[in-house]
Amino acid sequence: MTKRFTHIALVGKYQSPDVAESVLLIARFLRERGVHVWMEQGTASSIGKADGFPVATYEEIGEKADLAVVVGGDGTMLTTARRLADHAVPLAGVNLGRLGFLTDIARKDALERLAEILDGRYTEESRFMLDAEVLRGGQRVFHTLALNDVVVNKGDLGRMIEFDLMIDGEFVYTQRSDGMIVSTPTGSTAYALSSNGPILHPSVGGIALVPLCPHALTARPVTLPDSCCIEIELLPPHDARVHFDGQVHFDARAGDRVRIVRSPLAVRLLHPLAYSYFAMLREKLHWSAVPRHN
Amino acid sequence: MTKRFTHIALVGKYQSPDVAESVLLIARFLRERGVHVWMEQGTASSIGKADGFPVATYEEIGEKADLAVVVGGDGTMLTTARRLADHAVPLAGVNLGRLGFLTDIARKDALERLAEILDGRYTEESRFMLDAEVLRGGQRVFHTLALNDVVVNKGDLGRMIEFDLMIDGEFVYTQRSDGMIVSTPTGSTAYALSSNGPILHPSVGGIALVPLCPHALTARPVTLPDSCCIEIELLPPHDARVHFDGQVHFDARAGDRVRIVRSPLAVRLLHPLAYSYFAMLREKLHWSAVPRHN
Amino acid sequence: MTKRFTHIALVGKYQSPDVAESVLLIARFLRERGVHVWMEQGTASSIGKADGFPVATYEEIGEKADLAVVVGGDGTMLTTARRLADHAVPLAGVNLGRLGFLTDIARKDALERLAEILDGRYTEESRFMLDAEVLRGGQRVFHTLALNDVVVNKGDLGRMIEFDLMIDGEFVYTQRSDGMIVSTPTGSTAYALSSNGPILHPSVGGIALVPLCPHALTARPVTLPDSCCIEIELLPPHDARVHFDGQVHFDARAGDRVRIVRSPLAVRLLHPLAYSYFAMLREKLHWSAVPRHN
Amino acid sequence: MTKRFTHIALVGKYQSPDVAESVLLIARFLRERGVHVWMEQGTASSIGKADGFPVATYEEIGEKADLAVVVGGDGTMLTTARRLADHAVPLAGVNLGRLGFLTDIARKDALERLAEILDGRYTEESRFMLDAEVLRGGQRVFHTLALNDVVVNKGDLGRMIEFDLMIDGEFVYTQRSDGMIVSTPTGSTAYALSSNGPILHPSVGGIALVPLCPHALTARPVTLPDSCCIEIELLPPHDARVHFDGQVHFDARAGDRVRIVRSPLAVRLLHPLAYSYFAMLREKLHWSAVPRHN
Repeated sequence: MTKRFTHIALVGKYQSPDVAESVLLIARFLRERGVHVWMEQGTASSIGKADGFPVATYEEIGEKADLAVVVGGDGTMLTTARRLADHAVPLAGVNLGRLGFLTDIARKDALERLAEILDGRYTEESRFMLDAEVLRGGQRVFHTLALNDVVVNKGDLGRMIEFDLMIDGEFVYTQRSDGMIVSTPTGSTAYALSSNGPILHPSVGGIALVPLCPHALTARPVTLPDSCCIEIELLPPHDARVHFDGQVHFDARAGDRVRIVRSPLAVRLLHPLAYSYFAMLREKLHWSAVPRHN
Repeated sequence: MTKRFTHIALVGKYQSPDVAESVLLIARFLRERGVHVWMEQGTASSIGKADGFPVATYEEIGEKADLAVVVGGDGTMLTTARRLADHAVPLAGVNLGRLGFLTDIARKDALERLAEILDGRYTEESRFMLDAEVLRGGQRVFHTLALNDVVVNKGDLGRMIEFDLMIDGEFVYTQRSDGMIVSTPTGSTAYALSSNGPILHPSVGGIALVPLCPHALTARPVTLPDSCCIEIELLPPHDARVHFDGQVHFDARAGDRVRIVRSPLAVRLLHPLAYSYFAMLREKLHWSAVPRHN
Repeated sequence: MTKRFTHIALVGKYQSPDVAESVLLIARFLRERGVHVWMEQGTASSIGKADGFPVATYEEIGEKADLAVVVGGDGTMLTTARRLADHAVPLAGVNLGRLGFLTDIARKDALERLAEILDGRYTEESRFMLDAEVLRGGQRVFHTLALNDVVVNKGDLGRMIEFDLMIDGEFVYTQRSDGMIVSTPTGSTAYALSSNGPILHPSVGGIALVPLCPHALTARPVTLPDSCCIEIELLPPHDARVHFDGQVHFDARAGDRVRIVRSPLAVRLLHPLAYSYFAMLREKLHWSAVPRHN
Repeated sequence: MTKRFTHIALVGKYQSPDVAESVLLIARFLRERGVHVWMEQGTASSIGKADGFPVATYEEIGEKADLAVVVGGDGTMLTTARRLADHAVPLAGVNLGRLGFLTDIARKDALERLAEILDGRYTEESRFMLDAEVLRGGQRVFHTLALNDVVVNKGDLGRMIEFDLMIDGEFVYTQRSDGMIVSTPTGSTAYALSSNGPILHPSVGGIALVPLCPHALTARPVTLPDSCCIEIELLPPHDARVHFDGQVHFDARAGDRVRIVRSPLAVRLLHPLAYSYFAMLREKLHWSAVPRHN
């Protein structure tokens, strides 16, 4: 039941001095195992020397690789996921610091875990993405994907924005707030959690709407089925900034409509066999941590 | 595509003086329309006079009726749903006061809405239930269903309980708190909402875990897929009380395990064509209500 | 024990078409009562015609008036309070829309309530202000007052800022968040409330620190005694924007220190005799509003 | 400016096997330093052997001791504080496990820290208490003090209670909830914190009202000045249980009124010179703890 990975791309966090060594170490290890290895183009120039490994664009990786190993943190994984979304390249994440929610292989265990993955000892998990577009006068003026979240917020434009929320074309409410987070289960442990959003297990087919500092005290996070079409229409005179995974943004104008649906594309994450979602939550959220009343 | 309802049972809120008139009014209206009408046994004795209508137990209603009209509030609907759960009898709810989350036909419109339902003009919605049992030494000592929630709490036994949470047999955490709410989407707008739980749209296949006054500040509500098996094991010396829909309770002892899964049984709710989940939320949660800063 | 007000200034919300009529109505009413009336300069030019009333700057009002009547909303009151803070001019607020937290005289009752105030039938309440400065390399680069709050936030500069908090010179914590609200009791029902801050009764001598979307789940609002010196130091590379009452802002740089103490200056609010803080809270926060479970 | 403590009482946590050794160790240490040492009566019988030290009741301790050393956790400190409240005996707390909010001397440092206290090297802090009574038909049927909190809750009596809140005789609101926490600054880091209450610095003169699972989504914690008289009147048919510091309770009936004011009595806490409230918060609330996003 195992699958051999024979063509592997390496993506490393840009502008990060300690990434080079890890990326090259992994690259050589894979080469020794007979794997064809590419270095992602930006990673190669960030590292400064590709050490003889061929360089490939995201596009080329998407077409030719059967695995991408991401070396960095969750941010690097988010970028890679969006860039490779059109292709079905599975991703494995090596974390250079503390473990991430998405990059769950520790640097010190990286070679051992990757060897296991090459041997077919891993689990694969699918995480859905959001497909988001901004419509102006009915015309699409921006389009992208997000694995964590789409955040519509006030940017630097004062204290509040005002917008209408529509679900599947039905008006739900007008909200005045600092903004709204639209989050996947994957994003529910990221920014949404800081704003009192609910944690959604990755296998829940839901999208969370989490208001940011809402004016109305009765506004609460709502989880919708992932089959919904969510639209946020900016009411004049409010412009807003729309953020995608906290990495890409678009300046939307009053009257613009941000339209979000579940993308048919999904991210394939490979985990070591020891991986457990709940163990990761426990570790990351300090669930053993208590205020220690006596 | 319409369905004729020819055998209808009436269930009214017990001990409620103003229910009698509404129940009898509806009963006569249905009889005039050629429907065979039963009065639920407890309802009949609560009313005091069944006015010639035949009386039936829940068991008989479950076997013979093709619709039950519930007259009262959401509490009456919860009771009826649990009592009729083994049968596929659809339910329609007439509210005597302000509209409920589940009883969405206003008394003043009751005859008109019921006429529409008889004519096949309605929508049907399925709401899943929880199947809950208490295990002691591996033996089941209690079993019931819940449409809203299962709440494990400290009862009158001091300030906190301590328990282990297991999901699908995997240990998740040990929690010290006042207790835990395990809620369906239907229950997410009831008690769970008072404890900062997330609202789950009825078509989300999720079960929410909402801690009650948890000792650890990092404890957060988690939504799990409805395919999960949730187990809460009471750690000695903590006894606890387990509540089902806030209507039935069982006193569990230290060491007992409360085991909760999605029931294969579902509740069929009939709504008037004008029904909208979001409109109901807006109305019930005062989403037009704002603090009115100026 | 009554005090006669003989020199009264009128301040109206700028750029607000329906303010002119109310301001002039009140001005004429006061003139008929023998009061010397000034029109605040910006108000007069916003109205377009001062109708023969003398015009005065905030500075002149501060020196000569023994009462300022503010016509608009809470925002206009905040501006006026900061502009007149150096003087002990009491303020009475007439609201043009729904009642505000600070502007508690309804337009329709304005003449009657003002007559009562002229007759000495009112209560006076003191609200303390914050004195805030931004220090760069130890030098003050900005200084102002705030009646509601000082908000340090990320502006449009990405997702999070990082800063150290010091209380009376003692390091308290390093926080990563969208920012921090430092609020007076007066501000506790404004922006701070949207971010889950605690309501502080106006006579509590406390200052609330309310984190905005903090990264750490254990961050909680803290209320400090109003004798504290609160310092927020921006950690590189994080710039931030500092907002004062949501009306004035200053762009602070990494390394800058925002220093906040209670100002010795206070705002004197005059209320009609019927005024009640709790009645106002009940009205503004919809404390009669319930989710209407049944 | 130092004060010599010459008569010291020892109070130990009851029924706690590992307390005996510490209590006797401290007792002998103090005796060697020429201090007159008493063993609190219940502590002595819990230990089983007083080792020749004279035994005293709380009453006698209150009259004769000039310091009480409490060995246990915060719970033991709360009990001792209430029992000695009528006298001005200062308290120092030795914690047997992790440090407590109130018992801030670690067991391993106990002799060294107590030696410093005997030498006058300590700081003293005053913490106010609540004076609480239950009135039935205008007659007092229960009275006690609380250092942390007074909690009115539903006990085991179903899901909700309903009560009126009055502040200084003025009606504030009718609330339906699981109950209400009335907390001092000292109690603000205990149970109130689990229910999203605000942390109040010990030198804030405020009392926090923190609703427990309120039915209305607009109910929020409110901090009142400590000069207020707070009354909670149970509305029929709701009985309730009233808890004091989570240690003493009284079963109140529908119609009863719980009346809470700041007590003129205060608790005097002695801290080692190194004590810092913020350092303690940081330690206890894990303020270094973050979800570790990457």
